[in-house]
Amino acid sequence: MDLNAVNSMNYEEFVDIFGNVVEKCPLITGAIWSKCPFSSVADLEASIYEFIDSLPSSGKEGILRCHPDLAGRELMSGTLTPESLNEQNQAGLTSLSQTDREALNVLNSQYKTKFVFPFVICAKMSDKSQIIEELKSRLQNNRDEELGIGIAEVKKICHLRLQDIFLKVIPTKL
Amino acid sequence: MDLNAVNSMNYEEFVDIFGNVVEKCPLITGAIWSKCPFSSVADLEASIYEFIDSLPSSGKEGILRCHPDLAGRELMSGTLTPESLNEQNQAGLTSLSQTDREALNVLNSQYKTKFVFPFVICAKMSDKSQIIEELKSRLQNNRDEELGIGIAEVKKICHLRLQDIFLKVIPTKL
Repeated sequence: MDLNAVNSMNYEEFVDIFGNVVEKCPLITGAIWSKCPFSSVADLEASIYEFIDSLPSSGKEGILRCHPDLAGRELMSGTLTPESLNEQNQAGLTSLSQTDREALNVLNSQYKTKFVFPFVICAKMSDKSQIIEELKSRLQNNRDEELGIGIAEVKKICHLRLQDIFLKVIPTKL
Repeated sequence: MDLNAVNSMNYEEFVDIFGNVVEKCPLITGAIWSKCPFSSVADLEASIYEFIDSLPSSGKEGILRCHPDLAGRELMSGTLTPESLNEQNQAGLTSLSQTDREALNVLNSQYKTKFVFPFVICAKMSDKSQIIEELKSRLQNNRDEELGIGIAEVKKICHLRLQDIFLKVIPTKL
């Protein structure tokens, strides 16, 4: 897909295609449509990050709370979004041993108890061992640090989801 | 459901149950969890409205853009949320004559062309004739007026969805 195609969309097409670049937050996609036309893909992406950064802490926590646990109940029940399933699959989280899954579940629970939002990491940039080590390490942080790191990870996830859309939808135009 | 049950939930249960009180905006539900415990249902509701009001205009437009058209493509394709389907059904929008549906589609298109967000109205408080008349009337407004009216309608919808949850989930406790 090229940028002209995006700038020629109506808001419904835009939200259909880009509505999950931030997990379960089409509000953000709908909001940045107000900035269309975009001068570049980077401009579109920056508009998303600017909107996220403009939210109060509660809004940023709200974004994190829209994210599923890694190897958690949504994976088990088959209710992950296609994007999340793809990412968790690439990181090896869909084929964990029972021991690893249980270890991850315990760490996820500890994390949620401490921070009251889920552990968010750009799974595509890691593998299962790194994710478990990172979760152990981040459990030592304080809440403000984790809110900042979680949102930075949301942006990395968003970046890769945008790349996927621009690479895959109309590949002949690239 | 009583308020103690809500205040005893974890954020996942809360987002599961209240995640669609603002259509497709679990970000808002997740955000106001930061204010838990709530002193009353009215306090919970006020927290939602306060968060919505704190958003910039683009964010409010983003909320509107998460809403489906009335008697539009999501109804036709069976992709409405259960809450929206219920509301459109109660307003008689799921059993329109072809003439009425086409008339509504033309008005919806005119509205979206003018305002670049969809016509949002609390369908449960209207019937199909009132909705068509209201749509014709609101088409005459300017964009700022419609953003304000649309968001006020989002709050009415949210109020009724909250009422449904508190009335229906554990009715024996009321």
